[in-house]
Amino acid sequence: MTGPRFTKLAQSLPATVPFVGPEAQERNMGRAFDARLGANENIFGPSPKAIAAMQSAASDIWMYGDPESHDLRHALADFHAVAPENIVVGEGIDGLLGYLVRLLIETGDSVVTSLGAYPTFNYHVAGFGGALHTVPYHGDSEDLPALLSKAAEVDAKLVYFANPDNPMGSWCKGADIVAQLDAIPEGCVLVLDEAYVELAPEGTAAPVSIDDPRVIRMRTFSKGYGMAGARVGYALGQADFIRAFEKIRNHFGMNRAAQAGALAALQDANWLQETRAKVAAARDTITDIAAKYGLTALHSATNFVAIDCGRDGAYAKAILDGLVARGVFVRMPFVAPQNRCIRISCGPEHELALFDAALEEVLAELG
Amino acid sequence: MTGPRFTKLAQSLPATVPFVGPEAQERNMGRAFDARLGANENIFGPSPKAIAAMQSAASDIWMYGDPESHDLRHALADFHAVAPENIVVGEGIDGLLGYLVRLLIETGDSVVTSLGAYPTFNYHVAGFGGALHTVPYHGDSEDLPALLSKAAEVDAKLVYFANPDNPMGSWCKGADIVAQLDAIPEGCVLVLDEAYVELAPEGTAAPVSIDDPRVIRMRTFSKGYGMAGARVGYALGQADFIRAFEKIRNHFGMNRAAQAGALAALQDANWLQETRAKVAAARDTITDIAAKYGLTALHSATNFVAIDCGRDGAYAKAILDGLVARGVFVRMPFVAPQNRCIRISCGPEHELALFDAALEEVLAELG
Repeated sequence: MTGPRFTKLAQSLPATVPFVGPEAQERNMGRAFDARLGANENIFGPSPKAIAAMQSAASDIWMYGDPESHDLRHALADFHAVAPENIVVGEGIDGLLGYLVRLLIETGDSVVTSLGAYPTFNYHVAGFGGALHTVPYHGDSEDLPALLSKAAEVDAKLVYFANPDNPMGSWCKGADIVAQLDAIPEGCVLVLDEAYVELAPEGTAAPVSIDDPRVIRMRTFSKGYGMAGARVGYALGQADFIRAFEKIRNHFGMNRAAQAGALAALQDANWLQETRAKVAAARDTITDIAAKYGLTALHSATNFVAIDCGRDGAYAKAILDGLVARGVFVRMPFVAPQNRCIRISCGPEHELALFDAALEEVLAELG
Repeated sequence: MTGPRFTKLAQSLPATVPFVGPEAQERNMGRAFDARLGANENIFGPSPKAIAAMQSAASDIWMYGDPESHDLRHALADFHAVAPENIVVGEGIDGLLGYLVRLLIETGDSVVTSLGAYPTFNYHVAGFGGALHTVPYHGDSEDLPALLSKAAEVDAKLVYFANPDNPMGSWCKGADIVAQLDAIPEGCVLVLDEAYVELAPEGTAAPVSIDDPRVIRMRTFSKGYGMAGARVGYALGQADFIRAFEKIRNHFGMNRAAQAGALAALQDANWLQETRAKVAAARDTITDIAAKYGLTALHSATNFVAIDCGRDGAYAKAILDGLVARGVFVRMPFVAPQNRCIRISCGPEHELALFDAALEEVLAELG
C-alpha cells in the first residue's frame, strides 16, 4: 500500500497556512476575543439590503449559483463602465489570485512582490512552483518603480502591487500607477490588488484602460462592502485575459446567497458612503489612542491602521501578545522594519475602547 | 504590449464549461423554466434548521469563515467515527476534486475514469495536464474491475469511481468496492465519489478503512442535504493524505454562512430521513410517468432518474429539446449508449406533473 504519488511540487510544499484564524486562537486560549480587530474585517458590516438578500436566498440554496454570475457581473460592468467580458467573479481575491497564478506560472517562472506584502499571494506562487523575488518597501510604502525594475531584471511574468497596501495602509494616486505602466516589462503582468480601494481617498483607484493586457485589477466585497465571509471577489481586465479564467476556474464555485448579497451590496451606494465615514472616524480614534500613549499611527487609506510602536519587532510582538492575552485580536506585519508596527482594524467605539484599555495595560506592563 | 505569457498548459486548454447553467438557458430562451429538474439539485431543499442557521449567519458575514472549518469538521468526524484529521472541508466536491488532481497530477500523468462519467472531474484532469484514459460502462453501471485493470495498464495515479453513479443512478454495495481494493495498483489512488450516497440504500457507502491510503472518499451537502448553492463538500481519507490539502487549498475559501448551514443540516437527521422518503416517492412517480409512455426508467439510488427513451441519442436529444422548449429543464448523458436516456431530478408532485404533461406533448409531436 504505497498510497498517493504526489507531484514533485506538492511533495516540496510545506503545509503552510497563510494566516491562523482568530477562531483557532480562541480555541487555543479557551476563550473568545472581546474585540476582533485583527483580520481587516469590516466590523461595520454589510448593507442591511445585502443581509436581507442573503437571508432571502437561504431558502433557495438547494439551487446551484449561476456559474456565470450573470446578474452580478453585469451590474459590476455597469458600475465600472466596462463590458461584462472584462470581469470574472470568483471566490474572493484569494481564489482569483490562485487562478491567476495558475494561468501564468509554472515551475521556475519568476514573480515579483514586496518583501512583507500579502502572504496569500506568495502562498499561491509557491503552490505553482514560481520563483518569488522581492523588493523592500520604500519607507512604509510598496515601491512600484523598484518592483517593475526587479521584474525586468528577473524576467518576471507577474508582479504584485497592492494599492492601498496591506499591511501598512499606505497608498498612492491611481494616476501615478498609470503613469508607470510603460515601465512594465514585455510579457509581464501587473496584478493590482485594490481590495481596500472603496475605503481610500478619491483618485486612489487606478484609471487603467480596460483593454490594457498588461494589468489585471482585483476587487472584493470583503472590505468596503463588509462581506469577507461571503467570498466574493472579481477581477477587471482585458477581455481575452479574463476569458482565460474560464479554462480553469471552478465554474460552480460561487455560493448562491453570496452572489445575491454582493449584488444588493453594490446597489446600496449610501451604505458604502456611511461605511467610509465610520471607517474614517475609527481611523481617527485609533490614531488618537496611539498618540495618547506616545505611539505613532501611520496614515491609512484602508479600514485598518498600522501603529508604529517605536522600537523593534520583538517589542511590537510583545505588545501584540499582551493585547491578544487581554482578549483583543490584532495582527502585525511579518517583516522588518514594518514589524515595528501592530495593525488594528477599524471598528465601533466599544471595541476600540477595549483596545485602548488593553493597550494601556500592556504598555504599563512592558514599561 | 504583449500582455500575459500563459503557461503552455493554459494555452492548450479550451475555454471549457463543464455544464451550462439553467440560468444561461433561461436567458437564451427569454423565459424562466417552470420546472428545474436538470441539475440533480434537491428541490425538497435543506433542513429548515440549516436555512435558519444561514439566515442567522448572514449578519455575521463581515467575518471570514473559520479557515479550519473546525466545528463542522469535528461534527463530521463524530458522525463518521473518524478523527478530524481524516477530513478536509472544501468548496463542494468540485473544488475538492480540483485540489486532489492538483496534488497528484502533472503533465502526462495517467488518470482513469468511465467514458461518460462526471465531466467536472475530467475538466480538472485536463486542467492540470493529466492524460485521461476511459473504460466503457458495463451495462449502465461504472465498471470498477475494468477501471482498476485499466489503471494498472496505464500506470494511473488516480482512478475515479462514483457510487451511486451520475448520470445513470446505478450503484453497487459498498462492501463490493472494499472487496476490490487490493486490485488498486501500487501508487494509484481511488477517488470514490459518494455525492449521492445519503440517498442510496443502506450498505451503499463503502466501509473503507480510514487509514487506507489508497482511497479518498468525497461527500457533499449539495445532494441529500439540499444545499448545492452553499458549496460545502468534504473528503474522507488517511490523515497524511488529507493533510496534503493544507499545502494548496484556499484556506479562507469557505463561506461562513455555508459552514453554519452545513453543521445544522448534519445535525438534523430527521430532515434527511424525510428527504429520503420524498426522493423515493418522486423516483416512483418518475418511473410511473415513464412507463405511462412506454419508456423505461432505470433503477436509481440517487435523487434523479435516467429514463431510457428506447432509441438513439438523437431521439433522446429531441425529447430533451422538446422538454426544455416547454419550460422543463432536464439534462442527459453525453456519451453513447447512455445518451439514449434523459435524466430527471426528483422534485415535488407539481413539477413532476409539468414534466409529465410536457413529455406527453413532446412524444406525441415526435411520433
